[in-house]
Amino acid sequence: MTPAQSLATLQRSLGDPTLSYPLWPPMTSGCPRTSTDEISYPVEVDYAYDQVDPVLFATATGRGSSLDHWAPLLPPLAAPGLGEGGTPLIEVETGVFIKDESRNPTWSHKDRMNRCTVSAAVASGAPGIVVASSGNHGASAAAYAARAGLRCVVITGPELPPAVDSFLNAYEAVVLPVPWEARWPLMRRIVDRTGLHPVSSLTTTHTGHAFGPEGYKTIAYEIHQDLGVPAAVFVPTAYGELLFGIWKGFTELRRIGLTERLPRMYACQPTAAAPLAEAMRHGAPAAHVTVGLTEAYSIVSPVSGYRGVVTIQDSGGQVLELSDAQLETANQELARAGLWTELSSAAGLAGLRTVVDLDGPVVCISTSSGFKNRSVGLRRTETIAPDWDDVRSRLHAAGIRD
Amino acid sequence: MTPAQSLATLQRSLGDPTLSYPLWPPMTSGCPRTSTDEISYPVEVDYAYDQVDPVLFATATGRGSSLDHWAPLLPPLAAPGLGEGGTPLIEVETGVFIKDESRNPTWSHKDRMNRCTVSAAVASGAPGIVVASSGNHGASAAAYAARAGLRCVVITGPELPPAVDSFLNAYEAVVLPVPWEARWPLMRRIVDRTGLHPVSSLTTTHTGHAFGPEGYKTIAYEIHQDLGVPAAVFVPTAYGELLFGIWKGFTELRRIGLTERLPRMYACQPTAAAPLAEAMRHGAPAAHVTVGLTEAYSIVSPVSGYRGVVTIQDSGGQVLELSDAQLETANQELARAGLWTELSSAAGLAGLRTVVDLDGPVVCISTSSGFKNRSVGLRRTETIAPDWDDVRSRLHAAGIRD
Repeated sequence: MTPAQSLATLQRSLGDPTLSYPLWPPMTSGCPRTSTDEISYPVEVDYAYDQVDPVLFATATGRGSSLDHWAPLLPPLAAPGLGEGGTPLIEVETGVFIKDESRNPTWSHKDRMNRCTVSAAVASGAPGIVVASSGNHGASAAAYAARAGLRCVVITGPELPPAVDSFLNAYEAVVLPVPWEARWPLMRRIVDRTGLHPVSSLTTTHTGHAFGPEGYKTIAYEIHQDLGVPAAVFVPTAYGELLFGIWKGFTELRRIGLTERLPRMYACQPTAAAPLAEAMRHGAPAAHVTVGLTEAYSIVSPVSGYRGVVTIQDSGGQVLELSDAQLETANQELARAGLWTELSSAAGLAGLRTVVDLDGPVVCISTSSGFKNRSVGLRRTETIAPDWDDVRSRLHAAGIRD
Repeated sequence: MTPAQSLATLQRSLGDPTLSYPLWPPMTSGCPRTSTDEISYPVEVDYAYDQVDPVLFATATGRGSSLDHWAPLLPPLAAPGLGEGGTPLIEVETGVFIKDESRNPTWSHKDRMNRCTVSAAVASGAPGIVVASSGNHGASAAAYAARAGLRCVVITGPELPPAVDSFLNAYEAVVLPVPWEARWPLMRRIVDRTGLHPVSSLTTTHTGHAFGPEGYKTIAYEIHQDLGVPAAVFVPTAYGELLFGIWKGFTELRRIGLTERLPRMYACQPTAAAPLAEAMRHGAPAAHVTVGLTEAYSIVSPVSGYRGVVTIQDSGGQVLELSDAQLETANQELARAGLWTELSSAAGLAGLRTVVDLDGPVVCISTSSGFKNRSVGLRRTETIAPDWDDVRSRLHAAGIRD
């Protein structure tokens, strides 16, 4: 199936929305005209919104067809898909919905982004892609590159979780674990020397790929189809691409005339690494922080990006800083509801638990599966003898009586 | 959302289809009237097919709502769902579709079954469930039990993969790893002593839970909605519950008048453990084999069940025996298409590669994700210095030129 024609028209600066650029080539280092040595501003994609066929939003989507379904409001989908999107909302208590993004092709939200960024690489005629990531982003990029027949280089840190290591190697990606501080210079050098298309950020403060967050808009479209517009959306946040993409999707729904209401957006960061909170405190477009200890590795970043500030300001939202203990509590709460998630993925629900007085249903984004936790595989339950007295006492300890 | 009313009427013996039993209590040890000391015959669920509203099949399903959608043709769904089902078909070459069951709530097909079996436990008023499993079935059962507020005991062997161990513990299941030969006697004892509801087999040859394979029928319904009836379906097979469930779904579509055609069903087993192949060779309803070495642990069983024989015979299908090398080749082929699967999950595609002259599109069921392989986490790519000459030679080795 060939997706419908994209209505994308141009790239627009977030630093100065009156500035725009042609749609091609995709901008992978933010807006050159507004960025400075200290702050980089991202660009986003603009569309011919007046040409959107209303049937698009009236038709049900499902079964992982969602990015193809929404092709008119995405950059051209030149790379083949893997059935990304179309994830369910699970109601864990009345009015509290988990958007379970672990149901994507590589079991994280990143697939929505990489369908778009790898499409940019394909349409640009690049021989492959390069990505700096220690987790979900790299695995997802490697999958879409493999599917498109492109080479993939993943630059990662020494802290690469073993399961993700296996994952990347299954896709025959070139995995380069280097010291943390060497990652971005090496990425830049590989881009300059090889022509590989970069699908993660190359700039001082975070910008990333212009087309990436567009894929996340489809989360908003899906939520709107399933639930309408919720009172708030709680989003595990590192750089703010997911946060911004979801927000942009809702603003487009308003622009197209499908809703007047918009949700408050809550960015949920680990206390140990909350650069967006720091930026908001100082009224800055982005900020750097020293990263502390946390197990929520997927949302650890020493630097934020301007997309996060735009989202929090425009939506009347807030940045929430969460301890590992709060994340762990939310993780356990999700497990009791049947959902085993990565610790980072529990940040949405953990954030909700710190906020009161929300008027209406809320959605917490759960980004990925418990298999991606660094602790996975470390636990080994020892084999026991099938002695009934021993078994019986174990059952009793769990509240099971004979 | 409360699912629509079930049209289930009674339980029917596969050993003698003229024999039936009331719908309650759910039968967890097969058909007592036809089973002998050597061979146990399963039961299945019958429905008031003449009362099925044609709108049921005319309405699109999607986004993980599929079991609720199909409630009329399932046993009563008394346990809350997790958005199981609604998985996509991924076309990996013209006419070859992968049904990606790793997109379920616990990332395997077993969720379709456990929604049904845990529903039986809830409706029976059991305090919890007990399951013998070293992998996907146990994790899935634990998730549905947690969601329903039931206790869960998982009896497993010494070979429990570390990642699955972490998974079960996240759900606070009681994990009892015992020597292989002690599993079934212990399961029986726990059922007899505690009243926990068994959701895996208790009999000499495999029968399992009467309600379980009903959940798998929805795979056939979904394939039919997306593709029509394919020429063949290739199914990774241990006991044959998945194989039978999919087949039953297609036969129901014919019975309701939605198709005249039925697919050939191919059971894909590891050569090292192919009891269904053995049963077919001897014209027996089930067989025992000595299990050899294979990494495809999810489809290893020393014993088959009668459901497999029924499916192969009635569909004009075949049992295919596959070496680990063939499974590995198919696994790599799937990775090149962007799909990282468990080795057992590649059995469907590996089976297809051994069959010629199929007339029309085919579906290979991929049951679960690569995260569940025993080898996951064993590989550790070593950190390297960001030395350009070294990086360059690694890039060159992968065909990337500067």
